[in-house]
Amino acid sequence: MTSPNGLVCFTNCLLPLEDGSLVEKDLWIDERRGVILDAQRTFFTRKERPARVINLEGNILSPGFMDIQINGAYGFDFSVYNGDDEAYRQGMKVVAERIVETGVTSLVPTIITQEKSLYPRILHLLRPYTAPKSATLLGWHAEGPFIQLAKRGAHASQFLVTARERFASFEAVYGADNLADKEDWLMADGSGIDGVGVRIITAAPEIDGVMHTVNEVVKRGVVFSIGHSIATTDIATHAVQQGARLITHLFNAMPQLHHRDPSIIGLLGASPHLATPAFPPFSTTPHSRSGSIGRRISLKGPQSPKATSEAFDDLETPPQTPLLKATPTDLPLVKGKSAGVERPFYEMIVDGIHSHPNSVRLAYSSYPEGCILITDAMKILDPNLKDGPHEWRDGKRFIKEGDKLYLEGTDTLAGSVVTLDKCVRNFSSFTGCSLGEAIKCATYNPAKCLGIENKKGTLRPGADADLVVLDRKGNVLSTWVKGQEAWTRT
Amino acid sequence: MTSPNGLVCFTNCLLPLEDGSLVEKDLWIDERRGVILDAQRTFFTRKERPARVINLEGNILSPGFMDIQINGAYGFDFSVYNGDDEAYRQGMKVVAERIVETGVTSLVPTIITQEKSLYPRILHLLRPYTAPKSATLLGWHAEGPFIQLAKRGAHASQFLVTARERFASFEAVYGADNLADKEDWLMADGSGIDGVGVRIITAAPEIDGVMHTVNEVVKRGVVFSIGHSIATTDIATHAVQQGARLITHLFNAMPQLHHRDPSIIGLLGASPHLATPAFPPFSTTPHSRSGSIGRRISLKGPQSPKATSEAFDDLETPPQTPLLKATPTDLPLVKGKSAGVERPFYEMIVDGIHSHPNSVRLAYSSYPEGCILITDAMKILDPNLKDGPHEWRDGKRFIKEGDKLYLEGTDTLAGSVVTLDKCVRNFSSFTGCSLGEAIKCATYNPAKCLGIENKKGTLRPGADADLVVLDRKGNVLSTWVKGQEAWTRT
Repeated sequence: MTSPNGLVCFTNCLLPLEDGSLVEKDLWIDERRGVILDAQRTFFTRKERPARVINLEGNILSPGFMDIQINGAYGFDFSVYNGDDEAYRQGMKVVAERIVETGVTSLVPTIITQEKSLYPRILHLLRPYTAPKSATLLGWHAEGPFIQLAKRGAHASQFLVTARERFASFEAVYGADNLADKEDWLMADGSGIDGVGVRIITAAPEIDGVMHTVNEVVKRGVVFSIGHSIATTDIATHAVQQGARLITHLFNAMPQLHHRDPSIIGLLGASPHLATPAFPPFSTTPHSRSGSIGRRISLKGPQSPKATSEAFDDLETPPQTPLLKATPTDLPLVKGKSAGVERPFYEMIVDGIHSHPNSVRLAYSSYPEGCILITDAMKILDPNLKDGPHEWRDGKRFIKEGDKLYLEGTDTLAGSVVTLDKCVRNFSSFTGCSLGEAIKCATYNPAKCLGIENKKGTLRPGADADLVVLDRKGNVLSTWVKGQEAWTRT
Repeated sequence: MTSPNGLVCFTNCLLPLEDGSLVEKDLWIDERRGVILDAQRTFFTRKERPARVINLEGNILSPGFMDIQINGAYGFDFSVYNGDDEAYRQGMKVVAERIVETGVTSLVPTIITQEKSLYPRILHLLRPYTAPKSATLLGWHAEGPFIQLAKRGAHASQFLVTARERFASFEAVYGADNLADKEDWLMADGSGIDGVGVRIITAAPEIDGVMHTVNEVVKRGVVFSIGHSIATTDIATHAVQQGARLITHLFNAMPQLHHRDPSIIGLLGASPHLATPAFPPFSTTPHSRSGSIGRRISLKGPQSPKATSEAFDDLETPPQTPLLKATPTDLPLVKGKSAGVERPFYEMIVDGIHSHPNSVRLAYSSYPEGCILITDAMKILDPNLKDGPHEWRDGKRFIKEGDKLYLEGTDTLAGSVVTLDKCVRNFSSFTGCSLGEAIKCATYNPAKCLGIENKKGTLRPGADADLVVLDRKGNVLSTWVKGQEAWTRT
């Protein structure tokens, strides 16, 4: 059923706005172009009327959910390439087709640490991908290999590397093409050829050379995310100042919050009113070890960052710890607006397993604007899958028990198996936020982090008509991709 | 200079309100009665005019600061009693007289863990105390001896005890008289005889019997504060449900925030929307060990609280971990108001030493209404004191370096030496909050925690005219106690 002029009006529905509120309002789309329309302009200026009116009976019409960290689903693992391009493409296709039942209309598949020679082969396959009635693959999230051995989690230790040649090391691993600066990577034509591959890189800024890559990564429109890291407060802060704008699965694979060196988690409390660390300027010339022993960092006292000397032993001047030296000479009589560095976005897996609800709420209430819900799901993600043992790889098996997934015969958590729509419901339940505010963390916030909020994750005129209809408890009733109904609860 | 009718009007000043704002407004007091007046009523209804008008030249007129945890100052240690009542009283007097220079007009002196026989002797001396032009001692904060060995800090391990007889154990240590329920303990006549001694008890709820005392402590109008503790999330949550309403020096002497069991710190993220733990009802009858081995708690999985079995092995039914089982059946479309248990207040030592500014901001931004600034200062607190070595006790010496205090020959922090007015300035600087919001954490919030906001810590009509004049950078210009100027910067 298509309308002659392609105009569709959803009515009798609640729209989640970018401030987290839910308002009763109609939404107009052009189903032929697959975009959201400015209803005022269409109706009053162009004097057009919808060919179709869809009554949503008081349900919620949300932007489609966006999952920026997902390892696989429906039996397919984005990180496993067995040499058969066609099989890999088929796996991608299945995920994109089926995941819409969870309300997800765009995702950034995660590639965990690989043997180096596999990167160019997988990455070539995993460029932005669109297909009718399927979720859009936005490119890939490279989690590793520039990560911290001590916080590697499930990553293979033998494949971890440093970035001694700084950005050249990144190019050598991911391929310069995949890191090229493209003006509008979402304009890919869907052939899988256009568009740049890398959207997000998770790396540990304390690893040799990595800090010097941040600025280069960011310049190319790629999100630098801090994760699998033991960065001290000073190092993490400096990475943010260099342009890092995301924290990978907050709480997991990083130090606990220590009150005297709150490290990566503490970035959620970073204040623009504090003096900025006096790091020396970074050059982008290749790495050279110029520091003498006499210039090595020796910080004393409880604020002394343990990993500093390792990360910065090639710097000309030792970094200071001026965070504690801020003098209150200009105390604000009214609350100040952030004048300095923005706090980074942060991902959370809200499955009730990876983090306690109190931790989730503590993080969220400290910085709601930065919260991004992810599944970090493993390949067995499938809301229809039964509990019990399931094959993983190398002959190992998962045990699935509800949303809990662990390695057979152990207590080791083996990643997540929660769906993003359930994360949204959990999140509202755990934090006490409204459903609209929870939706925001799976739509607007991730889109903003990627800088694509004009195109995805919002109801802005001109954005793709990727939509999910939810009942008032947050259950998915139907999912729309580019104006076409892709899935309906039966 | 007194006015005939006792009416004084402060004008040309900014008043900090209870919402953290600063507004230009006059304040009227009755200097004879020492109370704040309702200006509208005095001026318009009673048609009285002030005998004195004090022009504050645009400075801030704040309620006097309240320090609810302070070990000593000006050379006197509240926890050291050498058998000489007169010397002890003289020490109290000196502190009360001199501390007004830091803007503090009321304090709750801390008694750290003592040998049991000393309690009745010190406590008798440390009842509420008022004297002209001196800060009010509101009674005492008993920190210990019912605390956790593993988190004892500077407390003497040999004096730590359990509460096997539950509340009777508390009475045996502190004295039943000191825990008696008095309707209005602030109505003490200043003789040091009336008024109940104990205002706050810091204890570890996981210690044998302590959980059973919380309700009894609270019933008597005494604040139960969780501290020097390794309570799991479940235990800490249950203590709050029993009535605990404060966390002693957040971050210090407690487990770090672990994302799967965020423990005491995680209470700042506790959500009233979560199901409440299914603890069995507590009786107040004396402790008896009825649990068989078969009834001991055996919780599995990452949420398993390590200390649970120790704390609850006398309970009939094992506690569950239902925090993760909340089902999102009633998701709020709009943000819900707290319908369940309130989150507790929490103390922070904002000296730039005890906690990193990012930690301070993380806590504050997650729950601003609960934040209470304390000094936790040692006896050498004295803004006029020079840096260098100072005598402590048992022949040991402190080294003071600015606001840092450590034991000579070690790196061990030996408590704080910061003044509360400086904490207020630090806090605004570290968090980016306004000066008015910082002031609130040293006035209204502690008063509310103690339930005395009609009398202290606010500018409400009828409250004591305990005031501090601050310049717009938060420096103390003068301090007033019960309508009398007690200190002025010269």
